Amino acid sequence: MTLKTIGEFGFIETISKGCIPRPEDIVRGIGDDAAVFRGKKHDVMLLTTDLMVERVHFDRRTSSGFSLGYKALAVNLSDIAAMGGTPLDAFVSIAVPDDCHLNFLETIYDGMKAIAQKFSVNILGGDTTRSKSDLVVNIALTGCAPESEILYRHTAREGDVVYAAGYLGDSRAGLYLMQNADEKDMAIFEDLVNAHLFPKPFVSEGRFLAEQQGVHAAIDVSDGLSSDIAHICKQSGKGVRIFAERIPISKQLASFCRRFGFDPVDMALTGGEDYTLLVTISSEVAESVENNYLKAFGSPIYPIGEVVNPEHMELVNPDGLVETLEHTGWDHFKNKTHLKKS
Amino acid sequence: MTLKTIGEFGFIETISKGCIPRPEDIVRGIGDDAAVFRGKKHDVMLLTTDLMVERVHFDRRTSSGFSLGYKALAVNLSDIAAMGGTPLDAFVSIAVPDDCHLNFLETIYDGMKAIAQKFSVNILGGDTTRSKSDLVVNIALTGCAPESEILYRHTAREGDVVYAAGYLGDSRAGLYLMQNADEKDMAIFEDLVNAHLFPKPFVSEGRFLAEQQGVHAAIDVSDGLSSDIAHICKQSGKGVRIFAERIPISKQLASFCRRFGFDPVDMALTGGEDYTLLVTISSEVAESVENNYLKAFGSPIYPIGEVVNPEHMELVNPDGLVETLEHTGWDHFKNKTHLKKS
Repeated sequence: MTLKTIGEFGFIETISKGCIPRPEDIVRGIGDDAAVFRGKKHDVMLLTTDLMVERVHFDRRTSSGFSLGYKALAVNLSDIAAMGGTPLDAFVSIAVPDDCHLNFLETIYDGMKAIAQKFSVNILGGDTTRSKSDLVVNIALTGCAPESEILYRHTAREGDVVYAAGYLGDSRAGLYLMQNADEKDMAIFEDLVNAHLFPKPFVSEGRFLAEQQGVHAAIDVSDGLSSDIAHICKQSGKGVRIFAERIPISKQLASFCRRFGFDPVDMALTGGEDYTLLVTISSEVAESVENNYLKAFGSPIYPIGEVVNPEHMELVNPDGLVETLEHTGWDHFKNKTHLKKS
Repeated sequence: MTLKTIGEFGFIETISKGCIPRPEDIVRGIGDDAAVFRGKKHDVMLLTTDLMVERVHFDRRTSSGFSLGYKALAVNLSDIAAMGGTPLDAFVSIAVPDDCHLNFLETIYDGMKAIAQKFSVNILGGDTTRSKSDLVVNIALTGCAPESEILYRHTAREGDVVYAAGYLGDSRAGLYLMQNADEKDMAIFEDLVNAHLFPKPFVSEGRFLAEQQGVHAAIDVSDGLSSDIAHICKQSGKGVRIFAERIPISKQLASFCRRFGFDPVDMALTGGEDYTLLVTISSEVAESVENNYLKAFGSPIYPIGEVVNPEHMELVNPDGLVETLEHTGWDHFKNKTHLKKS
């Protein structure tokens, strides 16, 4: 069955069940010209939007609808997390080619609803339309935060310690496996594949860090460590020194790199889609924030470098050799990431 | 020059000029993980989103970028208008095929900025990505309104007078002209073509009506009078009686229909994309609202029918013959609108 059979409005009825896990503050959800909701008292609003296009961001023939929907919302949640915000309501626009089955569309919404439920996010509206060739999903996600606690990109200070909140490079390795590996390797390196398909948005972690004194700037890793830290540096008018050996590499990624001949640091720098947070924290409080974080979440944040003056964009190798940290992360338009075989 | 030359971030720099005509309430615009803005005190928030896909909603070879950008935002403004709200901030997601020139993209943003300026709407963020084939534009637009004044679809009452705030059918005629007519006819029927390319969102009008006592329900005409009034009826649990001879038909549409052999009432019922408002008003105050509206805007709202009990969905013809009002408006998936030649 395709959308042709039940039409746009039949489809809206089908998917609008289970969309409102957090009904408070909602005046009117799906079904009118616009959704109506109340802002949170004392908080400012956040809004982010992400567009995913078939054959650019995903392959409909090899992806499950569930992972596609899950990830589409996860990447937006990650943006709210990187501002230190609490996510609130999602608005889903979807353009559907004629050969796309209703079943597949429902699993996309199942994936979105699964992660929405986890983070108490309502799916409050959107737009459904036709597409001549590719499936397109756009999500706009609102959030809120106390204005004084918001984490920006342009507020890093010289001397700040740079932290990563989770492993880097896993997602890129997962993508490589999906495109190149056999079933056995997919099973062995399951965590890497899952890191690519079901990225974890650091929502509670971002909110927690935003509440701590001395946390100055944050971004989530969507394009790769090297280009995302460069956004913070450029917007803050600062430089950075990253220590290669301190970059958190998972055991599976280390083992994957040995097996397939990649350099794990290169994966972390240029891979992208990790959706972990990078934060810069005043060196005076860095250690105490590190300890508080460990107590709160049972997992560490990793100090990987420091904010320095704007002349320096440096990667310090284990042997002490310093190279320029180039923005070699993902830019959809300019070029693809070139991973070096080590 | 294409996006390949300047990349995603170069493009963001290019288009982010002139995006903030209303800087109050904006904490942070384009350039971070999410936009940050304050809600309006005492008001609730509105959010609507519309997706436009090449070869479904527009033809890149024959449309100007300017009209494309203008209309993409106009249709969202119209949704906020239909809730009786004030539009605030727009978020633009765009997926760009490799053969799409930077020039064309800039004119899309010029069109959006032109209408955004007119309605004091900020373009506050979005997402830019690649597409393998079609150009895709999604806009999410926020707005606000006093909660007690919002105009819904589900709140029409039996006995209400149904009004249209402007001409119906012009846009569909404009589309027909663009697809079939020569330059001479295009010039003669310029208003119809402009109704299709540059629809007027009834923002001040919607806000004005929302403030009047006794205005019960509203929707904007995107799919055609017959299917949009059916949304109000279905959601309100009511029926409707529309009088064909009262439907506002522009002089150009009447003349176009004589020239090309169409029925103007059919155009109005099934054409769509007019983006005028349909409102239902208590019969007790209908006339006074009508007068106030005329004084405020110098143009009338047109009484075209009445809300009746749910058994009736009727179109009354000039000869008194009553036919069933069928939802024959536009559904992208189910089928195309079939315009009858009269």
